[in-house]
Amino acid sequence: MAEKQVRVGLAGFGTIGCGVAKLILEEAESIAAKTGLRLELGCVVDTDTESARPVKLPKSILTNDINRLLNDDTIQIGVELIGGTDAAKDVQLKMLDAGKDVVTANKALLAEHGNELYEAAHRNGRCIAFEGSCGGGIPIISAIRTGLVANNITAMYGIVNGTCNYILSEMTSKGEGFSEALAQAQNKGYAEADPTLDINGGDSAHKLAILASIAFGYEITLEDIFVEGIESVSKADIRYGGEMGYILKLLAIGQKDKEGKVSLCVYPSFIAKDNPLARVNGPFNAISIFGSAVGQVMYYGRGAGMMPTASAVVADIIDAALGNSVTTFRHLHLKPRSETELLIEKIGNCVSRFYIKVLAKNQPGVVAKYSKVLGDHDISISGALQHEGAGPNNTVPVVIITHSVQQKNMTAALVELAELDVLSGRPVCIRIVDIPEDKD
Amino acid sequence: MAEKQVRVGLAGFGTIGCGVAKLILEEAESIAAKTGLRLELGCVVDTDTESARPVKLPKSILTNDINRLLNDDTIQIGVELIGGTDAAKDVQLKMLDAGKDVVTANKALLAEHGNELYEAAHRNGRCIAFEGSCGGGIPIISAIRTGLVANNITAMYGIVNGTCNYILSEMTSKGEGFSEALAQAQNKGYAEADPTLDINGGDSAHKLAILASIAFGYEITLEDIFVEGIESVSKADIRYGGEMGYILKLLAIGQKDKEGKVSLCVYPSFIAKDNPLARVNGPFNAISIFGSAVGQVMYYGRGAGMMPTASAVVADIIDAALGNSVTTFRHLHLKPRSETELLIEKIGNCVSRFYIKVLAKNQPGVVAKYSKVLGDHDISISGALQHEGAGPNNTVPVVIITHSVQQKNMTAALVELAELDVLSGRPVCIRIVDIPEDKD
Repeated sequence: MAEKQVRVGLAGFGTIGCGVAKLILEEAESIAAKTGLRLELGCVVDTDTESARPVKLPKSILTNDINRLLNDDTIQIGVELIGGTDAAKDVQLKMLDAGKDVVTANKALLAEHGNELYEAAHRNGRCIAFEGSCGGGIPIISAIRTGLVANNITAMYGIVNGTCNYILSEMTSKGEGFSEALAQAQNKGYAEADPTLDINGGDSAHKLAILASIAFGYEITLEDIFVEGIESVSKADIRYGGEMGYILKLLAIGQKDKEGKVSLCVYPSFIAKDNPLARVNGPFNAISIFGSAVGQVMYYGRGAGMMPTASAVVADIIDAALGNSVTTFRHLHLKPRSETELLIEKIGNCVSRFYIKVLAKNQPGVVAKYSKVLGDHDISISGALQHEGAGPNNTVPVVIITHSVQQKNMTAALVELAELDVLSGRPVCIRIVDIPEDKD
Repeated sequence: MAEKQVRVGLAGFGTIGCGVAKLILEEAESIAAKTGLRLELGCVVDTDTESARPVKLPKSILTNDINRLLNDDTIQIGVELIGGTDAAKDVQLKMLDAGKDVVTANKALLAEHGNELYEAAHRNGRCIAFEGSCGGGIPIISAIRTGLVANNITAMYGIVNGTCNYILSEMTSKGEGFSEALAQAQNKGYAEADPTLDINGGDSAHKLAILASIAFGYEITLEDIFVEGIESVSKADIRYGGEMGYILKLLAIGQKDKEGKVSLCVYPSFIAKDNPLARVNGPFNAISIFGSAVGQVMYYGRGAGMMPTASAVVADIIDAALGNSVTTFRHLHLKPRSETELLIEKIGNCVSRFYIKVLAKNQPGVVAKYSKVLGDHDISISGALQHEGAGPNNTVPVVIITHSVQQKNMTAALVELAELDVLSGRPVCIRIVDIPEDKD
């Protein structure tokens, strides 16, 4: 079969953009040998055309004029790697209106304005492909959308932010504090200079919004997701949890019950030490999915970085060039907002077990008092650990593990615990997530 | 968008066939909601139309006449789940000639006659989709072919046979012997009444042939693969290996060097205890792949069984119905046999470390003698363990771990070791596989 030429226009020449350009330039031959498609860079657009980059482009294809990409009809595929939600959205819409398929890794944009963009793609008979938006190089989007399509997906548990996973892994294995571990993540290039969106759970929520929509077939927005970050996690809690058999991970969790009600959360989660996700360390990502037919599957790999993400972006380019993306995209039906809104479980109704740490003052009757508060809210204690020796200000740290209870009961109990005069400061509360095990 | 009806004909109504029928019948609604495709069973063909099955078919669609499937032009997709290589091949060829896309999970047939079948598919402008042939419900074929297409894949290490993995897991965790563990696998339904093809490594080799072809882009045949089964693995060796820090797994290994030379092996392999593959237990499968851009990725899930495999088969049906399979298939270029034959490394040239166990007679000078044999063949010892206490016939088991050495040197040394009068019986030789680690 004759080779088919595929011309690609790249908007955004930052880290991922450089990776994509590198792959297209250096792997064109081997991709052509494997697929019969010859990828060609039509142009690369960036406001900065001067800075040195780790990839050498052919002469005169770098430009600051987006119209060169938009108006070039030989360019079939537009790759948006600008990032952010303003200029990027405008560029994607214009690419679609110009009749190009769009490939992107922009999770923030898709999580916030996905529905509007998808509509524009449908209107133009084109597609938006976004394998690179979640899980870096792990082909997780196509796994859910295509590979597991015959399944009713009942749950997903993901470690989808490499920065947080690196920080928590360091805190766990080396007993480091949060700031130390964050500084090290920045040194190693795993955290941005401004790491806010990573550590506050926002980035994980973006990814969960995208993954959960296609897994459950619902239009999902960021507002549907309950989010807590890892900013206030202490090494003491990681250590105490470890003594009880748990490892702390920032999990993105989507669960669907039998009535189709979906709960969506991102929060620091204690999980059992022997769960496969507990062993995912450093900047790696992993996603466990439970399907009605397939049981448990897990995908593991690098969740970010120049080349892993570029690997996913170029896979999307090839899939778009084959014409498969547009078909898959056209056949991806999401239940509209009007129907799904009612199906999103409020966080207050969600049930889990909890790890609670209180600092008890050294005086008689303390246990009776905090136990009564918990009991008053129907919270049953399954385990407790009071270390001898002192916490700050002549207090004793007490760790309590509860049985399953609704979040709203726990929230109310925490308010009362914070007011108890026998305890010092606010109690620490971390959810314990019991990931189901698919065993023989 | 209006729903599109997709009529499917099923040939083979055994375990997997029942699972596929069940999914099509029970999940039609949810699949239609997610994809706009309404799957319908046109007919189900099996020589046995009488036995009770765990799924109830609509009236009169079960038949023993394959022509009802072949001659029904409303059936676009033929699913071959007959198994074996004779009737199945004939049926697939006839399906293709009748203009139907073929979906199958028949790894033996593809590994043995894939090239002939692929040619027939190309000739007819149709496709053969085979996600269910490897890794059960894990969408591994599409991950390699689509998700990782931008990568130069340099290596894959797979636990791809659930029967063997169950047996080795039981032997490792419970100290059981091979026959005990096999009997238990049969009791649990993880091993067939005749488990030969599983335990002799043949099934893993079939899967490796398929996975390696698409990963490396080479036409690969079974003859290219060096195969050893787990029949002669003893619990003692699993225990001794464990003491040295290794876990025994049956691995399917494909590696490509910088010159494009590929080595393909299936054999019992000692791997480091902390490698993620070492923790894959029971009937589960997992495949670690190393790509030039993506680094290490790993896929984990149930590698066999009715519903997991059916999940993969139905995913293929949907992909075929969308028209994507035929495009992907048309664009899958494999280097032909004439070119690849020269690129397959002979097993003798392959390099690895080895675990050797000899039974040394209780007499002076033994160490000097076997050490000399190893030294004569350029085999350097990196560790050794001689347990006090006796082996059979007043011997002492000595475990030797070697540095890397070519297989042909080891083969020659083993012949001489077997002849040494200070050793009893034939030495045991198991490869130690150092799976690379993708770390920060």
